[in-house]
Amino acid sequence: MGNNFSILHKDKDSHSRLGELKTLHGSVVTPAFMPVGTQGTVKAISPKELEECGAEMILSNAYHLYLRPGIEIIQKMGGLHQFMCWQRPILTDSGGYQVFSLALLRKVNDEGVEFQSHIDGFKHFLSPETVIEIQEALGSDIMMPLDECVHYPTTKDYAEVAMERTLRWARRSLLKKKENGQLLFGIIQGATYSDLRKESIKKTTELDFDGYSIGGVSVGEPATLREEVIDLVSNALPQEKPRYLMGQGTPCDIIMAVEKGIDLFDCVIPTRYGRNGTAFTSQGKLVVRNAAYSSDSQPLDKNCSCYACKNFSRAYIRHLFNAEEILGLRLVSLHNLYFYLELMRKIRDAIRNNRFLEFKKIFLSNYHED
Amino acid sequence: MGNNFSILHKDKDSHSRLGELKTLHGSVVTPAFMPVGTQGTVKAISPKELEECGAEMILSNAYHLYLRPGIEIIQKMGGLHQFMCWQRPILTDSGGYQVFSLALLRKVNDEGVEFQSHIDGFKHFLSPETVIEIQEALGSDIMMPLDECVHYPTTKDYAEVAMERTLRWARRSLLKKKENGQLLFGIIQGATYSDLRKESIKKTTELDFDGYSIGGVSVGEPATLREEVIDLVSNALPQEKPRYLMGQGTPCDIIMAVEKGIDLFDCVIPTRYGRNGTAFTSQGKLVVRNAAYSSDSQPLDKNCSCYACKNFSRAYIRHLFNAEEILGLRLVSLHNLYFYLELMRKIRDAIRNNRFLEFKKIFLSNYHED
Repeated sequence: MGNNFSILHKDKDSHSRLGELKTLHGSVVTPAFMPVGTQGTVKAISPKELEECGAEMILSNAYHLYLRPGIEIIQKMGGLHQFMCWQRPILTDSGGYQVFSLALLRKVNDEGVEFQSHIDGFKHFLSPETVIEIQEALGSDIMMPLDECVHYPTTKDYAEVAMERTLRWARRSLLKKKENGQLLFGIIQGATYSDLRKESIKKTTELDFDGYSIGGVSVGEPATLREEVIDLVSNALPQEKPRYLMGQGTPCDIIMAVEKGIDLFDCVIPTRYGRNGTAFTSQGKLVVRNAAYSSDSQPLDKNCSCYACKNFSRAYIRHLFNAEEILGLRLVSLHNLYFYLELMRKIRDAIRNNRFLEFKKIFLSNYHED
Repeated sequence: MGNNFSILHKDKDSHSRLGELKTLHGSVVTPAFMPVGTQGTVKAISPKELEECGAEMILSNAYHLYLRPGIEIIQKMGGLHQFMCWQRPILTDSGGYQVFSLALLRKVNDEGVEFQSHIDGFKHFLSPETVIEIQEALGSDIMMPLDECVHYPTTKDYAEVAMERTLRWARRSLLKKKENGQLLFGIIQGATYSDLRKESIKKTTELDFDGYSIGGVSVGEPATLREEVIDLVSNALPQEKPRYLMGQGTPCDIIMAVEKGIDLFDCVIPTRYGRNGTAFTSQGKLVVRNAAYSSDSQPLDKNCSCYACKNFSRAYIRHLFNAEEILGLRLVSLHNLYFYLELMRKIRDAIRNNRFLEFKKIFLSNYHED
């Protein structure tokens, strides 16, 4: 496969790196955060607002779109980019994670996975090949192969079975894939067992994917185990390929992972917390629904330049949540996305100037996790 | 009171007229439609989007804001305009209608009205004077006095009692009002009894308000009776003052009322239907949730230039509603507001060019009410 990733600069004092990932819909400078648009929309946010926040790439989900509205409809509308009016890069998750967390009555074997839709109970069968076909029909810029994601805790025996099946499916995905410019990433599995992770890395990277993602994290394991896995995997992955930490995380998680050399992130946290009235700020999380803010004329974050912070007080946004007005969750979702994307801009600037660790220190001294 | 309204042009062939209404926050060219922001936000829409749709003035509600978040908070935030980030004119409804439709356990007497909050059951008392004080604290551009709004059907005796109380309250409202540039409109009551309506008009217009509104319509009466009331009242109101038809209506209702000489409208229909997946188009209503649109690549209305119509297909918007995604109701609400505001722009152009009746004929020949 071609060389779609180049490292622009490596930080002197950490594993963090500045990279450029080329896709069919343009380039993305990494480390980058992808807002999550599971069902073909980033929840409560318009594509125009996403662009204004500086989103460069978003994530969507092949499993969800396959079930609803169905791939045929999206194809008729000219593909996923045109369907959802987003002309920048899209990464589609295969839905392996969703099949193993949302779907009912799963039967997994080497052929693939049979399951019942979480929406209407209808039976479906997905193989590694159909999952590639679906993502080719969607026209996403980066595809993910079907994998078997196991939850924590799991026996080592089962973790090994799932890891090896993921590998066999990875090979079949590569064979199925057309040479049409869509990228395909490999997924590292192996649960919290370091020898399984190492084997998964060795055999997956032999297959020469366009990038590698760390799967099977944030599946219930303690944070310390998760950090160990991220450390192990990112150290062992090839330098010249992009590294994607799936489904992560809080601002602190992201900074920690960038330090270990991760390039790509996605997470529902900014929009999910936004809908719930919790804002991320330079000082930490702020629950704007709290009575303490009922006559607070300050913006969510005085250091923020987003539309919500430039125009509205905490008191107003709190009122909107109290009155169950949709603008409330819109404003906090928008602010949180802006906060995450601004964090990534600051991270990239810091790497560019060889001061990532200094940035990390200052950020963490202001930001209080609770 | 000063002359805040001037008629720029009268249509040759109908009672429709082009006017300019001057307020503390700028001028509004009439006939104008006010999007409804009951709780200090037009549901699901940001102030920036309202401006982009061309909204010139919005309506909010003193009763709702008094109950939540409370007037003191809005005052602390610098008044309603600053609180909700809307720098153009705001008309506040007094909440008379809400006290008589939403609130519990009402006791009405000449002093005012005692009621229980529909939110938390706490008891409150509002007099004509406190309602003026509330709206002066909010800083709205146009205030409405407390009135007694009776539902259809009602006895003539009670309609007379309510009409006369509304008159006494109107006089007290004028006495209470500061001379600070905020305008105050009178409200014509009298239910569907033409002699009561005439008496209400005679005695209310003697008081020299800045404008007059037709209250007590759309309270359950048949459309033909409503039309008769609007006809009677708008014919009898002074030419030189703005006329406001409260809480109306469908596109056809508005066109009919403009023809009778009405200048101002407000209605929840565009946003309420928008949240429900029903779009107003030049051909009539379109229920975009319907299966018929599941792979329809057309915009909601091919003749519309709003953000939703320039960027998204019916198939996509239908998918958003099916998947319960907030962007769906945002896009249809936005489209409907744009449709209403564009209708008003077309109406004003038609009046300016003495071709209102021609415009009406063409509009109605394309627009199918169901």
